[in-house]
Amino acid sequence: MKRTCLSIILAAGEGTRMRSARSKVLHTVAGLPLVGHAAAAAVSAGAERLALVTGRDAGDVEKAVAALHPDAKFYHQAERLGTAHAVLAAGAELDHGFDDVLVLFGDTPLLLPETLLSARAALAEGAAVAVLGFHTANPGSYGRLILQNGQLTAIREFKDASDEEKQIGFCNGGIMALAGAHAARLLRSIGNANSKGEYYLTDIVELAHAEGLRVTALEASETELLGVNTPVELAEAEARWQARRREEFMFAGVSMMDPASVFLAYDTQIAAGCRLEPNIVFGPGVSVGENTSIRAFCHIEGASIADNVEIGPFARLRPGTKLADNTKVGNFCETKNASVETGAKINHLSYIGDARIGAGANVGAGTITCNYDGVLKHFTDIGAGAFVGSNSALVAPLSIGDGAYIASGSVVTLDVPADALAIGRGQQVIKPDRGRAIRERNLAAKAAKMAASGK
Amino acid sequence: MKRTCLSIILAAGEGTRMRSARSKVLHTVAGLPLVGHAAAAAVSAGAERLALVTGRDAGDVEKAVAALHPDAKFYHQAERLGTAHAVLAAGAELDHGFDDVLVLFGDTPLLLPETLLSARAALAEGAAVAVLGFHTANPGSYGRLILQNGQLTAIREFKDASDEEKQIGFCNGGIMALAGAHAARLLRSIGNANSKGEYYLTDIVELAHAEGLRVTALEASETELLGVNTPVELAEAEARWQARRREEFMFAGVSMMDPASVFLAYDTQIAAGCRLEPNIVFGPGVSVGENTSIRAFCHIEGASIADNVEIGPFARLRPGTKLADNTKVGNFCETKNASVETGAKINHLSYIGDARIGAGANVGAGTITCNYDGVLKHFTDIGAGAFVGSNSALVAPLSIGDGAYIASGSVVTLDVPADALAIGRGQQVIKPDRGRAIRERNLAAKAAKMAASGK
Amino acid sequence: MKRTCLSIILAAGEGTRMRSARSKVLHTVAGLPLVGHAAAAAVSAGAERLALVTGRDAGDVEKAVAALHPDAKFYHQAERLGTAHAVLAAGAELDHGFDDVLVLFGDTPLLLPETLLSARAALAEGAAVAVLGFHTANPGSYGRLILQNGQLTAIREFKDASDEEKQIGFCNGGIMALAGAHAARLLRSIGNANSKGEYYLTDIVELAHAEGLRVTALEASETELLGVNTPVELAEAEARWQARRREEFMFAGVSMMDPASVFLAYDTQIAAGCRLEPNIVFGPGVSVGENTSIRAFCHIEGASIADNVEIGPFARLRPGTKLADNTKVGNFCETKNASVETGAKINHLSYIGDARIGAGANVGAGTITCNYDGVLKHFTDIGAGAFVGSNSALVAPLSIGDGAYIASGSVVTLDVPADALAIGRGQQVIKPDRGRAIRERNLAAKAAKMAASGK
Repeated sequence: MKRTCLSIILAAGEGTRMRSARSKVLHTVAGLPLVGHAAAAAVSAGAERLALVTGRDAGDVEKAVAALHPDAKFYHQAERLGTAHAVLAAGAELDHGFDDVLVLFGDTPLLLPETLLSARAALAEGAAVAVLGFHTANPGSYGRLILQNGQLTAIREFKDASDEEKQIGFCNGGIMALAGAHAARLLRSIGNANSKGEYYLTDIVELAHAEGLRVTALEASETELLGVNTPVELAEAEARWQARRREEFMFAGVSMMDPASVFLAYDTQIAAGCRLEPNIVFGPGVSVGENTSIRAFCHIEGASIADNVEIGPFARLRPGTKLADNTKVGNFCETKNASVETGAKINHLSYIGDARIGAGANVGAGTITCNYDGVLKHFTDIGAGAFVGSNSALVAPLSIGDGAYIASGSVVTLDVPADALAIGRGQQVIKPDRGRAIRERNLAAKAAKMAASGK
Repeated sequence: MKRTCLSIILAAGEGTRMRSARSKVLHTVAGLPLVGHAAAAAVSAGAERLALVTGRDAGDVEKAVAALHPDAKFYHQAERLGTAHAVLAAGAELDHGFDDVLVLFGDTPLLLPETLLSARAALAEGAAVAVLGFHTANPGSYGRLILQNGQLTAIREFKDASDEEKQIGFCNGGIMALAGAHAARLLRSIGNANSKGEYYLTDIVELAHAEGLRVTALEASETELLGVNTPVELAEAEARWQARRREEFMFAGVSMMDPASVFLAYDTQIAAGCRLEPNIVFGPGVSVGENTSIRAFCHIEGASIADNVEIGPFARLRPGTKLADNTKVGNFCETKNASVETGAKINHLSYIGDARIGAGANVGAGTITCNYDGVLKHFTDIGAGAFVGSNSALVAPLSIGDGAYIASGSVVTLDVPADALAIGRGQQVIKPDRGRAIRERNLAAKAAKMAASGK
Repeated sequence: MKRTCLSIILAAGEGTRMRSARSKVLHTVAGLPLVGHAAAAAVSAGAERLALVTGRDAGDVEKAVAALHPDAKFYHQAERLGTAHAVLAAGAELDHGFDDVLVLFGDTPLLLPETLLSARAALAEGAAVAVLGFHTANPGSYGRLILQNGQLTAIREFKDASDEEKQIGFCNGGIMALAGAHAARLLRSIGNANSKGEYYLTDIVELAHAEGLRVTALEASETELLGVNTPVELAEAEARWQARRREEFMFAGVSMMDPASVFLAYDTQIAAGCRLEPNIVFGPGVSVGENTSIRAFCHIEGASIADNVEIGPFARLRPGTKLADNTKVGNFCETKNASVETGAKINHLSYIGDARIGAGANVGAGTITCNYDGVLKHFTDIGAGAFVGSNSALVAPLSIGDGAYIASGSVVTLDVPADALAIGRGQQVIKPDRGRAIRERNLAAKAAKMAASGK
């Protein structure tokens, strides 16, 4: 029988050490807000219901999570009276009879779903509480996990720990799985008789143990449980997330000459056989097909890229870019909302926005789609097999037929029929010896200018 | 009573291990010559007088230092007879009655002013000499600091050290603070009765100790005292300098997705709330206001950037660029000596040099300011709210009025009044079926060429 | 008397852990296939004859090696019956009387020639077999080298090793040098009486020892013997290769601000005094002269660059680029099959393909050589001292004479005589107040569109 699962995600903190005008959980790793990583991990671990506890920037946090998880519920924690108090802000959810309750934090973006599944498995085997812990070389002031006969009996805050307990290297990672049958009762029995007058989630361990319930500690890696509190920790989390995902791609057959300079987004997809040169930045929404080559210095967002494509170096693909098989986008080219059909090429110094480039068409160096009139954007349609000569300006809305030929340096404002030639440029005039005259005049002007300035 | 301070900076070395045609101290870290880092640290630690001892490339060293410290004094050390001899090249300065004398080296760019202030504090508390030392895992052949009862009694060169002394892990960092009351006398009493016949600054410790003066050793980090002798050490110093400064910016609220790929200059200023994607290179002279976003692959020098600006990816800002609030400079754009007023946009593939872009103006893709006539540079003035159509060439000197509209693909050579339309392009002609004919002719030419070459 | 040398390189493996459609040995480090690194090391160590044993993708491996070593011989190993069997696929070569036989693997790209020379020296001193080994912190499941009285007596596979033997930290690196006088006999006496029924090259050690021959173990670094089996190991090999070569260049007087972001090809040449900013990618075939400066974000392949050149930032030099002394290629410029003569400048946003730029010529921003007619490429010749105004389109084939002057924004289709002026652009027309009218019309269109869509 499948167990049902609720995840309560605590995302209310002030995060003052970030020194940021935005809530900590809205800062991103791999292009996804920290709280989004927690939500994604919960869903991947089988949570049917997400309950977010918000505080600072509640509206923005809600918007960010709802964009990816439209069914998520949000509960506002008006006062900050400790972690157990925060969980109980979503206490109404505990009455819906979920088998498992995962309590996550909005600032631990490296947590893996398989670790949460292990914690749920512990519940399935009879534990009332399962706590994630980690070993670290420098346990410092982390809370320590106190074990007796394989059972977790308490989480001891560092300041309350005896010297002997401080020797324990197994530290509290914060994250817990609670059996739904006990969660509400245990949480509501946590008191605030401590120096700060706060309700601590960690007290649940001793309460459960006192009731004779089983409490389990599960080990996760220190990386998985890394919490983000400062901009430096945010950068560290980003680095570890990237390292992990790069390695996954490499083992799946993607080759990277310098993995450390490839930046993936949370949802980047790259198929086997792709080759990546150094310095590639992926924004969200990118999928790359097989055997595609991405050369150095590319910036790619919201682009759907098929097989055997050649990109870069120095290409910038913006949202709405679709590159079909065997296409090429080369150096100093920008594409946006552009469908590039099979075998078409945009090789040099071009801006292709709001456009279709038909199959096999060739877009010459320096081509610009003039898609903006200062107010609205317009579309350029280029037919299959068309040849757009270099340095052309294509003034949208515009349609260029299949097999049409645009003479280099043209400004094209009128539609071009299939197989037609369009020329839109001035007639060349040659003035003998005038080049020399201009040079001499300019040199004289410079001399006069320098004389005037006394140099 | 504020104590006065002289700093003597030794910058005369040959630096042969750099294998460079330039003096070692002219090589840069974060865009500032090594000797400039020493001078800046001395000034930040309160030195009212800088005395530079120069040797190789004395003129260039003088020029580099004087550019930032016009009152600095320069003394040429013609012969190289040891470090004490070098200090005494500036011996005349010792007679001006400074309370404190900081003896620095031109090749230790990571030294922090606060460390020098600690050394000066030791002088204020009665020490005659304060020496900076460091602990290191691999003391190797560094000189060792010999302490007795908390006093430094000698600096022992490794080759002269006993086996017992070689076990000492506290090493000589070279840098010293000397009490002005004793400095000249002690320095002049250093002899050269050693195998090389040189005058060693380190001998001052034993001389002062013998006189019964107090000599203090202060610990600094190994990083701070890192000396640069080879190109590899130069790269190492650059890396450590960058790491330190990046972290300072992050803790001040600047977010960096990949700090290791952001290269700051010695004088870069970035306000809180800025977001930096990977791969940003700052040259000297850049300030960035609040909440500005710099996307990947940007190169920025000599630019003054205000708040809420969006830069890049792939933007190159050159000296004289001024970006007002809410402006945008996008991909494959270059600006130089350009004032971009509030809300103006230069989004794609443009060169804007020697120009003003008025508030709210839009510069279309592929716009080029033709500012150079082969001899002189000329100015382009674009008014507020103007619209410059894509792929336009603006031939300077040129003035485009407020609200003017430049048709796409125009070459503009004459001033454009406010709210006027300017068009400067050829009339488009369409020749039916001629595109096909050209394609067939070209294919035939290729076939003929291949036949001729026997393929 | 000079000893002759044969190298047998094993390049037949499947390399399934690479998850690649190509043979493992065709994957590249520094732009050279792995097998090419092995071949180059053998040749540098004096091998007169290369014999490659191929299997998977034999034709492609042969082509890749023959491109650089036309005299190499290839032997196909149809069945895979172990490493000794693989060596004997090239057994015919053993009958040619070479003094030394180097047995290398196609997947160890970091092996240094000097290490192979040491192994050959051991043969010259009387050893029949010399095996390369390495020490490592994590010997794991590597085969162990069993020594007695300084002689290697066996290579013990991990699974066959006693607990005592597992304590040995000296591991088998695989690579061997064999005395030609004994090689064929020893190799042919290796049996396959083991669980897999394969012929193991490592058995040669015990056989030689049993014959009373001298068998030597030589230590190499773990890095040198790093074998590539997975995409992650490939990236690791690339990183180590790059780190080693960067350091060589730095010690030779090339300064790199951020060495870790400079990617060298196997054949890159850079002279002393060059300065490299961060993020430079070199493809094969590049040489750089003295005191040249390469700024950030450059991609350079197949280019011959002379002295005192300034490149970048954001320059892309493609094969066939030749930059003479004192030339400049600046941001967002692409060159291909282009000879840029002394002092010429291409500073901004240009594509120069199939062209000569004469000495001292200036190519303005946004200049495009229109070299492609859709089928064939054509040449553009620009004379010394010519001035090409910005945003010009040069339609090849085209010749522009010395000292000619191209007006900005021109489309040039006809040859331009020396010192002449060429203009090819529309006449500018100004329509007063029409700019305002267009803006109002566009705004009205937007309002209508939004009304229609119900926003």
